[in-house]
Amino acid sequence: MKQILLHEVNGPLQLTDAVIQTCQAGEVVVDLRAAALNHRDVWIRQGQYARLQFPFVPGSDGAGFVEDQPVVINPGLQWGSNNNYQSESFQILGMPTNGTFAQKVVVPAEQIYPMPSHLSFEEAAAIPLAGVTAFRATVTQGKVKSTDRVLVTGIGGGVALWAMQFALASGAEVWVTSGNPDKLARAKSLGATGGFLYNDPDWIKVARQAGPIDLVIDGAGGNGLAQVMKICAPGGRIVSYGGTTGAIPQFSPQILFWKQLHLIGTTMGSPSDFSAMMDFINLHRIIPVVDRIFPLGACEQAYACMEEGRQFGKIVLQIPVE
Amino acid sequence: MKQILLHEVNGPLQLTDAVIQTCQAGEVVVDLRAAALNHRDVWIRQGQYARLQFPFVPGSDGAGFVEDQPVVINPGLQWGSNNNYQSESFQILGMPTNGTFAQKVVVPAEQIYPMPSHLSFEEAAAIPLAGVTAFRATVTQGKVKSTDRVLVTGIGGGVALWAMQFALASGAEVWVTSGNPDKLARAKSLGATGGFLYNDPDWIKVARQAGPIDLVIDGAGGNGLAQVMKICAPGGRIVSYGGTTGAIPQFSPQILFWKQLHLIGTTMGSPSDFSAMMDFINLHRIIPVVDRIFPLGACEQAYACMEEGRQFGKIVLQIPVE
Repeated sequence: MKQILLHEVNGPLQLTDAVIQTCQAGEVVVDLRAAALNHRDVWIRQGQYARLQFPFVPGSDGAGFVEDQPVVINPGLQWGSNNNYQSESFQILGMPTNGTFAQKVVVPAEQIYPMPSHLSFEEAAAIPLAGVTAFRATVTQGKVKSTDRVLVTGIGGGVALWAMQFALASGAEVWVTSGNPDKLARAKSLGATGGFLYNDPDWIKVARQAGPIDLVIDGAGGNGLAQVMKICAPGGRIVSYGGTTGAIPQFSPQILFWKQLHLIGTTMGSPSDFSAMMDFINLHRIIPVVDRIFPLGACEQAYACMEEGRQFGKIVLQIPVE
Repeated sequence: MKQILLHEVNGPLQLTDAVIQTCQAGEVVVDLRAAALNHRDVWIRQGQYARLQFPFVPGSDGAGFVEDQPVVINPGLQWGSNNNYQSESFQILGMPTNGTFAQKVVVPAEQIYPMPSHLSFEEAAAIPLAGVTAFRATVTQGKVKSTDRVLVTGIGGGVALWAMQFALASGAEVWVTSGNPDKLARAKSLGATGGFLYNDPDWIKVARQAGPIDLVIDGAGGNGLAQVMKICAPGGRIVSYGGTTGAIPQFSPQILFWKQLHLIGTTMGSPSDFSAMMDFINLHRIIPVVDRIFPLGACEQAYACMEEGRQFGKIVLQIPVE
């Protein structure tokens, strides 16, 4: 079979031939038809993760066949028994175990979910890691309601777009932020009520006029998150799934306690989150936002595209039939 | 009747004669037997509140008689209809409305609760503001469980002591912090498993050895709260009811999302919190911790005692029968 094998930090992403590993009891082989990139893949290649173990096949997201059944893979392995947090042995498919940037991948059978019948393989591959992170953030932890005014920061990224789609399907009013006016326009075309340019120094004043925010879904942190607290409604929930812009300087307990805000940390998702998300996607027939599709052999270009950060939606790899 | 009337910022707290205000429909007159101080009273006198309206009778906490019935007053007025947060018209008895440092006070009838039969007036007066703040923090928002390891910071203050007592009555294991070894010893005598001196630069290392913390009840904020996040268990809850040591410098989203922590702001309590707290105190026959009792005429000394900050428990005023 063909696979991408990464041998070292910043190593090449070449398509090479390999023999699929042996399947153990309780495992299945997935004949992959599509995979998708996450920031995790880029950061791992750049050496930004601890305990990297080379070589390995990267990739967490994938869809394909198990025998005749189209499936999606839940890449969260060994979550553990408590839905509130992941166990210490939690890991994500695609380092240290071999991932989805290959024609085949071996995973425990319980990681496999039927693929939604309204989606292509390329769309289904856009679900797993970003989708479950967003679902846990928005639904499980954020408890989004149809009466909520929701703010999703940094629209265009995979998690942010899924969060917007889950909130919209829940009947909530959704606002977004971006540094790029085109991304705001595209979010509006998908159902967002409006958006704010976070590089406008007055964006918080503008946002305040839209009305108080009941639920924030944020992956950036930094001073932006401190600003957002100012426009939260009393009793508002802020769900944080990332900190790409770093620590929050001068975090005020006063705003937190006087407004009775809940600041909720979340990462990835449990098997229960994944299962509920698949039901939700099927029920609402949600179609993932795919930015571009590359062939598996053009993995290098796909990574470059993600590093540029201009995408609006998932970057997908089409995998040739063996 | 006798009352304490404050005419200006930093004005004297002299016992003066007055005529009780007229009772409107739906209001009751409480013949007070005991009142208690809160930091709020000291801060108001120091002019640290916005929109001060002089003159007024200070005091939020009180117990006494309505006709022949011993009662406790819920000092949270006009909370509003949503249990998740206070309305914009929420206010606390004792500025702008006349408070409990008097022989009589007029309050809406719904603010009155039967006094627990196992308590004296002096003990019952120690319940209201600190008690409901701690109950909402620990039970309503913090959802304390018998299996939790709880950390209550700044033991000795009214809210912190109530939080410890509510957590202990819930069956939880309770640890405390203080800057004073005597306060740690007294907390242990009340049932705390142990304590940490927060002015020891290595206290977090020591605390880590006690095991991960499931629930933190904190009124300080500042760098201490950032440190405490490091010893929280995955899925831990941190409830913040105050920020006496200021903002948290460099608040890390990474710890928050990776550990799936919930940082929950809370202030005061709703009528539903107050009612549930009274039931809880009756059920567990909890006795409030009273530090010292002053006669109403020695209000000046009682304020001085609170400003010193050495107390362990509530500072109570005994009110002479008219």
